[in-house]
Amino acid sequence: MRRPRRREGARDGAGTYGGEMFASRRAALRRAMEPEGVDALLVTDLVNVRYLTGFTGSNAALLVHAEGEAGSRFCTDGRYREQSAVEVPDLARLEDRACALRLAADAGGGGVDRLGFESDAVTVDAHSALVDAAGPARLHRAPGLVQRLRAVKDDSEIAALRAACAAADAALADLVAAGGLAPGRTEVEVALDLENRMRGHGAQGPSFDTIVATGANSAVPHHRPTAAVLAAGDLLKLDFGALVEGYHSDMTRTFVLGRAADWQRELYALVARAQAAGTAALAPGAAVSAVDEAARSVVRDAGRGEQFLHGLGHGVGLQIHEAPALAASGAGTLAAGMTVTVEPGVYLAGRGGVRIEDTLVVADGAAADLLTLTTKELVEV
Amino acid sequence: MRRPRRREGARDGAGTYGGEMFASRRAALRRAMEPEGVDALLVTDLVNVRYLTGFTGSNAALLVHAEGEAGSRFCTDGRYREQSAVEVPDLARLEDRACALRLAADAGGGGVDRLGFESDAVTVDAHSALVDAAGPARLHRAPGLVQRLRAVKDDSEIAALRAACAAADAALADLVAAGGLAPGRTEVEVALDLENRMRGHGAQGPSFDTIVATGANSAVPHHRPTAAVLAAGDLLKLDFGALVEGYHSDMTRTFVLGRAADWQRELYALVARAQAAGTAALAPGAAVSAVDEAARSVVRDAGRGEQFLHGLGHGVGLQIHEAPALAASGAGTLAAGMTVTVEPGVYLAGRGGVRIEDTLVVADGAAADLLTLTTKELVEV
Repeated sequence: MRRPRRREGARDGAGTYGGEMFASRRAALRRAMEPEGVDALLVTDLVNVRYLTGFTGSNAALLVHAEGEAGSRFCTDGRYREQSAVEVPDLARLEDRACALRLAADAGGGGVDRLGFESDAVTVDAHSALVDAAGPARLHRAPGLVQRLRAVKDDSEIAALRAACAAADAALADLVAAGGLAPGRTEVEVALDLENRMRGHGAQGPSFDTIVATGANSAVPHHRPTAAVLAAGDLLKLDFGALVEGYHSDMTRTFVLGRAADWQRELYALVARAQAAGTAALAPGAAVSAVDEAARSVVRDAGRGEQFLHGLGHGVGLQIHEAPALAASGAGTLAAGMTVTVEPGVYLAGRGGVRIEDTLVVADGAAADLLTLTTKELVEV
Repeated sequence: MRRPRRREGARDGAGTYGGEMFASRRAALRRAMEPEGVDALLVTDLVNVRYLTGFTGSNAALLVHAEGEAGSRFCTDGRYREQSAVEVPDLARLEDRACALRLAADAGGGGVDRLGFESDAVTVDAHSALVDAAGPARLHRAPGLVQRLRAVKDDSEIAALRAACAAADAALADLVAAGGLAPGRTEVEVALDLENRMRGHGAQGPSFDTIVATGANSAVPHHRPTAAVLAAGDLLKLDFGALVEGYHSDMTRTFVLGRAADWQRELYALVARAQAAGTAALAPGAAVSAVDEAARSVVRDAGRGEQFLHGLGHGVGLQIHEAPALAASGAGTLAAGMTVTVEPGVYLAGRGGVRIEDTLVVADGAAADLLTLTTKELVEV
């Protein structure tokens, strides 16, 4: 089976807080559907289904009827009969392996004329099959509706993200205290150690494959741990996160093993300034491209713009990468409640790189709320 | 970052065995492209890109030109500049965040008239963008070409799958020997223990979220580990696998904690007979639906057909679920070299369930080659 992630909160959802929360998200989606003029929306992206229902299995679809819950339907297959009864008690449930086709047929047979679908998630072949299954209903592209709702987190989501970030902070603190970043260890050993410590602090697991990159490897933005041995004088980059109740934390810290050389100090100070500038630019209404530029201009002014190889950051929540993208090419503006990473990096090929990354919640009339609390000062371990 | 899995073998591919292997796979794809009449195929499914190039990062696309390697191109973004130089030394490399659009534009500008694309992987919105980017090139649906190649494993793939299955076997043997399935432990503890033991036997990690289900939980086909405590008399179902060099193993074993009750013995014997019947039906040329039926009829004849809630099995390789699907609704036939699971299960809601699953390689003129070697006799631990 693929990796469906557990949402603990959904388990106690039947009719109580959890159930109301999901019903309220579906109500918000109905409001977002209005400008599209659709009679119903077929939700097939599994993360979106989870957001709207609490269902955590690996096969499902949801039909959200514009007129309300009565015409809405959930579908999964026989493997999840018992689980869906617990997780999705408040919607009519159908059972079929081909969930999306079943719901499209149900919609077409049930009087839906204009059926919205997630054109950013449905493949060209799947769309053809939906057209056939939907019969009289006409399909209408409606991309990104749930993603836009998901970009602004509610209190329960921020609580889960805060807990995930705290597990990562605590694991890193333990690792440093235990001498876990000592020369002689391998990148793979450090990664596994960090992941196990996150579990010890309540994480279901890592939120993505942990990056541990030492020495010249730290110049590779998305290096994966190898048998490379940590050595005195190395830059050591750790990019990792914890998964708690389905929510992903994301943090990068870069250390120096032993005394930092001047070039390492200069590189670190530059990235730290860029990171602070990006963070300071986080505010409701700010263009995402302007936030990227706030950090990028610091690096460019230092003559290192070409060595900042990626966007500034990304939204984080039920997925490790979600809306909004903080990038030069990004469109749109920030809103209060959006939870994003700010992670500039400068990479000197063959020598080493520095990246510093926090997860933060955009706040109204205040600085963004910092969720990753580990120091960003240069630490020589 | 999402979980890109490491393919160790690709690292030493430059110009030697690995490089030739990927070039030979691209040559096989060109032969498969001929009936489609396309000038080039745009490969955007990341697992397919990996199969054809060895690239293991999280963003890439590949243009395979019908006329040969010279017109073929690989694209990834700046984060993977160094990694792609190592992993894909033998193809022209472009650098762009929007890999697929870049390659479509490159194809359209380079004289490609008919451009195949993976219509089973490209979304409706992405297709619209490709049409715009491709300019004069006309897009042509070409689904499943690489998946069909991938279904039949070559020797290097079978070796990796064998190693992955061996790591899982060894971890389970260790766990049992260490008393790790004792009453009093929780499902979560057992799962973590098993995963760490797989790492100790050379796995990069689990190949999917480990299923540990005790007592009534064993009746939930895809139950995820909870704080439920193992108790004497329980059926205990473990469904798990190891990831080695990017390849996934998959095995399920069901134990009884202490002495088995009669109903547990009967249930176990039924599933074991179904599993043996399914395995015996594996042969080149056999219809996948007939293989499913061989096992399912055993369960149905015992009056428990309604309690076998899922298909018989699935292909396994670079993905945990891939072609072919062994299911009543499945189309097509088996071929030598296909690597599949055979995993019937019978689930008694509220009481317990049994599933027994092996990973096997379909063989010419012989019984299928068993990769998961742990006993399938009823073990009372």
